[in-house]
Amino acid sequence: MVLDILNKKRNGEELEYKELDYFFNGYLSGDIKDYQMSSLLMAMCINGLTDEEIFCLTKIFVDSGDVLDFSKDVGVLVDKHSTGGIGDKTTLIIAPIVASCGVKVVKMSGKGLGYTGGTIDKLESIPGYNVKLTEKEIIKQVKDIGVVITSQTKNLVPMDKAIYSLRDVTGTVSSIGLIASSIMSKKIASGADKIVIDLKVGDGALINNMEDAKKLEEMMIKIGKIYNREVSVIINDMNTPLGYNIGNALEVLEAIDVLQGKEKDTHLVDVCFELASQMISMGKGISKREALKEVIDSIDSGRAYDKFVELVTRQGGDLSKIKIAKKTKNIRAYKSGTIKVIDALEIGKLSVKLGAGKEKLDDKIDYGVGIKLNKQLGDKVRKGELLATLYVNGDVKINNIKEMFKIN
Amino acid sequence: MVLDILNKKRNGEELEYKELDYFFNGYLSGDIKDYQMSSLLMAMCINGLTDEEIFCLTKIFVDSGDVLDFSKDVGVLVDKHSTGGIGDKTTLIIAPIVASCGVKVVKMSGKGLGYTGGTIDKLESIPGYNVKLTEKEIIKQVKDIGVVITSQTKNLVPMDKAIYSLRDVTGTVSSIGLIASSIMSKKIASGADKIVIDLKVGDGALINNMEDAKKLEEMMIKIGKIYNREVSVIINDMNTPLGYNIGNALEVLEAIDVLQGKEKDTHLVDVCFELASQMISMGKGISKREALKEVIDSIDSGRAYDKFVELVTRQGGDLSKIKIAKKTKNIRAYKSGTIKVIDALEIGKLSVKLGAGKEKLDDKIDYGVGIKLNKQLGDKVRKGELLATLYVNGDVKINNIKEMFKIN
Repeated sequence: MVLDILNKKRNGEELEYKELDYFFNGYLSGDIKDYQMSSLLMAMCINGLTDEEIFCLTKIFVDSGDVLDFSKDVGVLVDKHSTGGIGDKTTLIIAPIVASCGVKVVKMSGKGLGYTGGTIDKLESIPGYNVKLTEKEIIKQVKDIGVVITSQTKNLVPMDKAIYSLRDVTGTVSSIGLIASSIMSKKIASGADKIVIDLKVGDGALINNMEDAKKLEEMMIKIGKIYNREVSVIINDMNTPLGYNIGNALEVLEAIDVLQGKEKDTHLVDVCFELASQMISMGKGISKREALKEVIDSIDSGRAYDKFVELVTRQGGDLSKIKIAKKTKNIRAYKSGTIKVIDALEIGKLSVKLGAGKEKLDDKIDYGVGIKLNKQLGDKVRKGELLATLYVNGDVKINNIKEMFKIN
Repeated sequence: MVLDILNKKRNGEELEYKELDYFFNGYLSGDIKDYQMSSLLMAMCINGLTDEEIFCLTKIFVDSGDVLDFSKDVGVLVDKHSTGGIGDKTTLIIAPIVASCGVKVVKMSGKGLGYTGGTIDKLESIPGYNVKLTEKEIIKQVKDIGVVITSQTKNLVPMDKAIYSLRDVTGTVSSIGLIASSIMSKKIASGADKIVIDLKVGDGALINNMEDAKKLEEMMIKIGKIYNREVSVIINDMNTPLGYNIGNALEVLEAIDVLQGKEKDTHLVDVCFELASQMISMGKGISKREALKEVIDSIDSGRAYDKFVELVTRQGGDLSKIKIAKKTKNIRAYKSGTIKVIDALEIGKLSVKLGAGKEKLDDKIDYGVGIKLNKQLGDKVRKGELLATLYVNGDVKINNIKEMFKIN
């Protein structure tokens, strides 16, 4: 009974498999309403989930749809997952790098969650790019060009799709158990054999402290063992936006800069190189150092960028048609000094306010809007110097510049 | 911003007036969705509300609609509020008793909440009874016959109506702060000068332990002081259903039995007499003992029942047309012994399962179904003897008879 389950979780008791199954599958079938599910999700966020509840949820998520197995058609697949973060365009950069080094990548990505953007939203800012490939098309494409980035196919973890959207707008994103089941169920169902998790920690990320990060790492490795998947977790700081651009089309343009070798030595580049090396190392069974050399070669030779263009073109996208909002608004330094903080969370909120993300389920994303930082953490600025440019449609009021950029 | 507020409450922080105002009024206007409100309500249930938050909520609730003041038209009004409970038909009994003793009663009642039925649902089981009087009609009627039982008028605490319905189906009923604001805002807005609160405690009630009951009492008296209303709280046990009948039409029939003096010396009768005496004592400024004598006289003389008939008739109801479900199912004693427990919560759940209450917002109530107990707590039974009769439409499976009735 719906109310019994809600009351039980509200009172901090452990739910059994059959109760979780009843509630979650009832939600998917429409018998249980979104206002009831959001209430349960909030109770889970506050009262937590036991290991057993998390294993049950993962199983319910995986079982809610098809489970892919590319092993006989394609061989071993290495997958990467980022827990998201403000300005995180790493998938757009890593997938072509890894593929250009001969390790096949089938990346199923998601939409924006909380204040963090989603890879699929970013790709949809490229006119024509098809984010909805069928399983047949995925297999054909990964055989032909070694790389695919698409959204979850229709029957793959439909439960996660439904819950993901609801969590996004109900303040129920930050739960270790819900994050672990969501990530791992997708990776398991999408047929990845070896999985690199890019776990972001900081104000702008889903997880904001090291203790929770370690718990999430441990939980994902535990779930991986149950399903016989090799899981490697890399924890990255995320108090500052990743790279210069925040907003869907703007992030695609920055990914191109990195792939073309134009952006160098930033934190974004470091993170991409580390993750790509780990994936290649696991995929080819070589050392991380050898793998890193291959990564650098793929950029310098132009192979990585060529692979990106091949990927986008194959999925119908036209890079020449990307549009950025024409109206701009500059944010200037309110005093001279050194930039001590670029607050990822505040920048993320601003990007949602501009329209780059959703506040409600039926909000529409404005792909062309966003924020382009002109400075990075630690840079010196003079009063009046340009800190960032906003690309906007409509009017925007900003009254928390000092919270976004702390100068001292 | 919606997500900030949700995150703040999820993390256990205190919300400010302007945040609560933004969220609750946003919900009422439709900008904030029910799945967001239910998420906030669950966070409030688990993390609690501060005194300041409860005062703010009460103000937001009261301010959401009109505030009535009958003092110039009618004089001092004494109101009673029960926090609900399984089988609680006290309003149907007390209002006519008190009115027949010369104290005017304008009772604005609500619909079912959780597993407990609502007075309005019960009255709606009387064909023709109009539960939607206008303010003009209320004033006219209370001047003419001294008593009115109606639902909240359209513009009276619309916030509570909206929140009440949502809490009912999202496991967010049992919060002291939410209960206090809900009850007190309705009493304040409905123009009651003196208020008797019948606070039910037990498994079948909104509040299930004495500690919470004392907190709620204290909170309601505090709120009353701010608005200059005299509040008197009577705490009653509610681990056992009140009276014999549970279910809308069945409860009306039992109320008639009490008013006609046919049901005597039950816990239901005791509770009704105590509450009615307290109201008459406050309304007339006489001792409770004198008031109790008036109550007994009103039953014995037939004046109380006559007043009930006058009330129902005036509001369009026809008592001769009340319908009870024709199909019955008997529950018999599974062994001989003494009835040690009649579990109000389990009986309440069963009544909802039969259709007497709602599980989802759009469920319909079946007024004719319910449970008629044949025994009371402490009665001796022989194996096979009738414990209760269910009045049902459709098929019902019951597999927890031993939880509902404990015999030893």
